[in-house]
Formats: sequence, structure tokens, C-alpha cells
Amino acid sequence: MLPPGSTIGILGGGQLGRMLALAAARLGFDVHIFADEPDSPASRVAAATTVAPYDDEAALRAFAGAVDVVTLEFENVPARTAGILIDAGVLVRPGAAALATAQDRVAEKTFLNRAGVATTPFAAVDDEADLAAAFAVTGGPSILKTRRMGYDGKGQARVTDETEARAALPAFSGAPLILEALAPFTREVSVIAARAVDGAFAAFDVCENVHEHGILHVTRVPSAASAAVQQQAIDATHRVADALDYVGVLCVEFFVLGDDRLLANEIAPRVHNSGHWTEAACLTSQFEQQIRAVAGWRLGPTTRLADVEMLNLIGAEADAWAKLAADPDVRLHLYGKRDVRDGRKMGHVTKLVRRG
Amino acid sequence: MLPPGSTIGILGGGQLGRMLALAAARLGFDVHIFADEPDSPASRVAAATTVAPYDDEAALRAFAGAVDVVTLEFENVPARTAGILIDAGVLVRPGAAALATAQDRVAEKTFLNRAGVATTPFAAVDDEADLAAAFAVTGGPSILKTRRMGYDGKGQARVTDETEARAALPAFSGAPLILEALAPFTREVSVIAARAVDGAFAAFDVCENVHEHGILHVTRVPSAASAAVQQQAIDATHRVADALDYVGVLCVEFFVLGDDRLLANEIAPRVHNSGHWTEAACLTSQFEQQIRAVAGWRLGPTTRLADVEMLNLIGAEADAWAKLAADPDVRLHLYGKRDVRDGRKMGHVTKLVRRG
Repeated sequence: MLPPGSTIGILGGGQLGRMLALAAARLGFDVHIFADEPDSPASRVAAATTVAPYDDEAALRAFAGAVDVVTLEFENVPARTAGILIDAGVLVRPGAAALATAQDRVAEKTFLNRAGVATTPFAAVDDEADLAAAFAVTGGPSILKTRRMGYDGKGQARVTDETEARAALPAFSGAPLILEALAPFTREVSVIAARAVDGAFAAFDVCENVHEHGILHVTRVPSAASAAVQQQAIDATHRVADALDYVGVLCVEFFVLGDDRLLANEIAPRVHNSGHWTEAACLTSQFEQQIRAVAGWRLGPTTRLADVEMLNLIGAEADAWAKLAADPDVRLHLYGKRDVRDGRKMGHVTKLVRRG
Repeated sequence: MLPPGSTIGILGGGQLGRMLALAAARLGFDVHIFADEPDSPASRVAAATTVAPYDDEAALRAFAGAVDVVTLEFENVPARTAGILIDAGVLVRPGAAALATAQDRVAEKTFLNRAGVATTPFAAVDDEADLAAAFAVTGGPSILKTRRMGYDGKGQARVTDETEARAALPAFSGAPLILEALAPFTREVSVIAARAVDGAFAAFDVCENVHEHGILHVTRVPSAASAAVQQQAIDATHRVADALDYVGVLCVEFFVLGDDRLLANEIAPRVHNSGHWTEAACLTSQFEQQIRAVAGWRLGPTTRLADVEMLNLIGAEADAWAKLAADPDVRLHLYGKRDVRDGRKMGHVTKLVRRG
């Protein structure tokens, strides 16, 4: 167990790194941010910051020497970055295997199926010649996605058939792709959970999510999904965490179909937007849970004190801060981003409904 | 209203400054700490820090130019410090009048009585010659205290009569003193409340406090005091805030006597140890409320989500962090202090009991 006063290294300077840093501070830790841009949101609440590219070996080695453990706010950390840090002798949590699995949609879905967690049918598409076989697997309307580096709906195209897929290919510039069957879902849910060094597992209550334009719009807890479906989702997340020998917080997103079947969509090996409400409504937030796990501490209680609705503030929506701050039913959280940009996550509000 | 992205200046680098900085970050503000020691707990979660003595005029003027408003974590800010900042054209909230009132126990109790808030009988003691008249006012067992700079029970002596008081005098080295009649209290309560720039007032639920060796030991909410006493305490705090034309969070501590009479003991013109539970259990914490008030925002809702018991971790008590972190019923908060010292506030735990 890392004692208070130890230094937590965080790869990434965005809002997730910032909220992790705030949680680490509450436990008496110092935080050292490694980010590729100066003046990042996370760096402004951290004791130290390294600004360097994620492949700067000298900077990474110095960072490894300055911190007691390394965690991350984004799954697309280059394998080489994690490799340099591990080689320098510092613990990286979650580890390289979890990152590699989550970074490649084909590896991810293959892993999920092997762990006994169903997904939508999928097939790798390296070039046009793979399309016919891929549609034979998906059997109809599908989504063509980059295998790597996609997020918030970027790098995706809906395609009804092989002809449409062929027309969509050039926009991907030859990147390795995956074709996934469209899941006829009735709702989307996610499970935020943590696994400790000793294998202990703790899930927060299941989140029900609504996306708009590929970006999370609102999360509601409790979910309206059946208790059985919710327990299945938590059990599946538990199997995923165990199979990855995972340390830290992870999120598994699921589609719930009309017949209550569950299909896992994606693993995020990190704290997740759909868990931001935990900071306002739980004894332990997902951010504190991540810090506890990577520091080798016991996981905290995930008890929820209220029903919640978390609404993202995207782009100019955050300009309404004064009105939002005056709403007695919500907690406002802004990320300290200097520039408002379309589609950029600027903050969120959590509406709490006291129970009982 | 200061927009998010503005910089909040905080005088003081201790745990209160740290918790204020964490709350400011959640609203998208940057924080600049002014502290007289390097590597302070607050500086490690702030975007910028000035390390200089509190009477360093050049440093204070530069600080004033770098921030959009100044607030503070301790009431004993020298009048000259506030004067330099105000002269440099920056808003200081709370203002000089509130600080002057709270810094001198005679001025404070005189002010309270004029605002219609009862206190224990008291008299100024400048030298031995004042003792007889002072005991005539207090009428019996009393406490001799320095008029200025006392905190956590420091600078105090219990004295039964004039003879004991005369024997105690040399230890005070000629500092101006106050003699206060011992209040025969059955419980101690405090009110944490905020007043906004527009005069709006919002109190948190009344705190019931137990001190040990002059230091706050435990705070419980709700208080076991009668509803009438609690309302009186809130009303008195409201009068105090209005009379001071106060902006920010303040705390008024009260004694509750056997006959349910209330006597105000002390005004703290800042966030207060007895309000730390608000960070774990309320929609708005005292820290966020202070930031909202000094930034000219509307006050947030003080709704409490659970019954609470907040226990201070003094000195080596914080060494039990691993055990405390594993207790599923508490939220642990550590302040990042480098050295454990006897009597030093190292952290606190808040035990939450969900209602309903």
C-alpha cells in the first residue's frame, strides 16, 4: 500500500486526469501529470507536471523516477510509452495487457467473447477484399469503425451493405477496420467497477446512458433495465476484470436488446464519463476508487446516496454556467478548459434526487 | 460574477486553503495560493503559488495583480496585508471590517452584543489593575485569554479567582487579555453559513461539536439541541452576517446552556473545521459555498443527504490511515501534511448514515 504523501503519476492532462488528481489530493497524495500540452486542466490542480510528447523516452524515464505508481486517463497510451515506464521500473496500473486489449476493437471483442461475454457479430476488415466475408458475419446493417483510436463516435460510418461500405472506405485512409453488426438495442447501460491488487471487485450501480451524435449526453441511475439484466452486466464486468487481472477502475458499455439479452460494446480501462455522477452521489467516487486501487489500497464503499441524472455540457452548453450554478437541484462541475470547441466536453451537471 | 477560468487568490496554504482550492477547481476556477512557507498543502493543488511573508508589499501587489478576487483560510491575516491588497485594487472577501472584528475577542463580543446576540460576560484586561473589575463583571470562574491570535485552545488559562488570575498573568507576557465568565454549557453547537454579494443568506444544518484539549474532536449532524435552539442559532448567525455586510462563509460557535439559552462564543470569518462534513454529505460543501460567494455567484443548495459524524485526525491519529480507509462507513480526507506533529490537524473522517 502506498502511504499518503506518495506521488501518483497520471498520463494525460484532461478532465479525467483533473478529477483523478482532485480525488488523490483528498487522500493526501501528491500528483504528477504527464501531458503533451502545457497548461492542461489536470496540471492546474497537480503538484508537478511534465510537458512532453508521449514518446519522449528521457522525459518518461524522469517521470517514472519521480512517481510511485503510474495510472492514466486515456486508453490510447502508446504501447511504447507504457513499455518505457515499465522498463524504468515503475508500476503502471492498469497494465499493458489491458491497454492492448482495449486499444484494438477486434482484440477487445475477441477477448470479450472468450471471457464468456457476448458481443454483436464482428469481423476485421483490412481492405475491400474482406468486406463480403465481413457482411456474411454481421448479416446486415453494420458500423464500419477504425480498429484503433476511435472515441466519441469519431472514425465510424453506418453502412447498410457491401456497396455502401465500399464507398465509405476511402475516408478511412487505409486504417485497419472492424465491421460490427448494428445492435437493435432498446437501451444502453454501462458498469463502472474497480478491481484491487488483491482481486477484490466492487461495482457502482448500473448506469443507463443516452448518446447524441456519438457522444454521451445523459446518464441516469438507477437504470430502468430489469434487475436481472443489471446483475448480468455487473457479473460480465467482473469476469472481464478478472480475465484481464485488472487493477483500477474500468467501464464496460453494454447494449440491452428487446429480449433482455446483453451485448458488451466496449471496455474503457479507466474512469468513464458515465461514472461522473459517483463524485456527487457516492461515498467513494470512481476517481477515488481508481486512486485507491492503483495505490494498492482497499476499495471504498460504492454506496449511492441519491438517485441521479448526469448531463454532459458539450461545447457552448457550458456557457450557461451562471444559470446552471443557480439551479438548486444540480451540482455543477466545470473542467477548466480554456477554449470552448464544438463537441468538446466542457463540464457536467449532476441532478440529485434524495431518496426516502 | 467572476466567470469560470478566473483566478481565485487564497491567503494561506493549510488544509482549509487546500479544500477551498479543490472546490474552486470543480467550478472551473484557477487558484493562486499566497503562503509564507514553501510546499504547503494548498500549493500542491493550485495552479500558482506565491511564497512570501504576509507583510511583503511587493509580493502582495504582484499577487493582487495576478488574481481576480482574494479570500483567506485564516482570520489572523494582518490588517496591513488586507490593506495592501485592497489598496492594489483587488477585492478581498470577506473584507477588512469582518477580519478586524474577528481578530480581537473584545471587539468580537462587543459586536455580537450590539447585534443582539448574547455572549458570556467579559471584560478587557490590560494589566493586573484590571482584574478586580473584570471579576466583578464575570462573577466567578473564568477564562483568561489573549485578545488576539488564539486558536485551538492556545493562549488560554482557566482561573477561579483574582489570585489565580494574578498568578497566570506572567505567562501571557503582557499581551492584551480578555476575561470571560465560564459558560455552564450542556452542549456546543456551531452554524456554518454563507452570505452572497446580494445579501442572500444560506445556513447548513446546525453542527454539534465536542472539543478535547481545546481542539475540535467530533462534529455530529443533526444536533441533539432542540429545534427552537437550532433556529435561534441560525437566526443569530444571520444577524451577524448582515451586521458585518459579510461576503463568504462564516462560522459562529455557540454554547447551549441548561435552560436552552444560547451564548455566542466566537466568529470565524472563514470555512470552519466543524463544517468539513458538508464536503461529504451536502449538495454544496462549505468550500464550494465560499468560492461561490467570493466569486459573486448565487449560493448553492445546502441540502444534506445523510446524517453525519465528523472525527478529526489529530497528530499520530492519522497514522491509522490504512485502517480508516478500509472502514466501509467512512470517508477519509487527509491534508497532505509532510510532518506529523502533536496536536496538528492531519485529516478527518466523515461517517455517513443514509436516512430513509
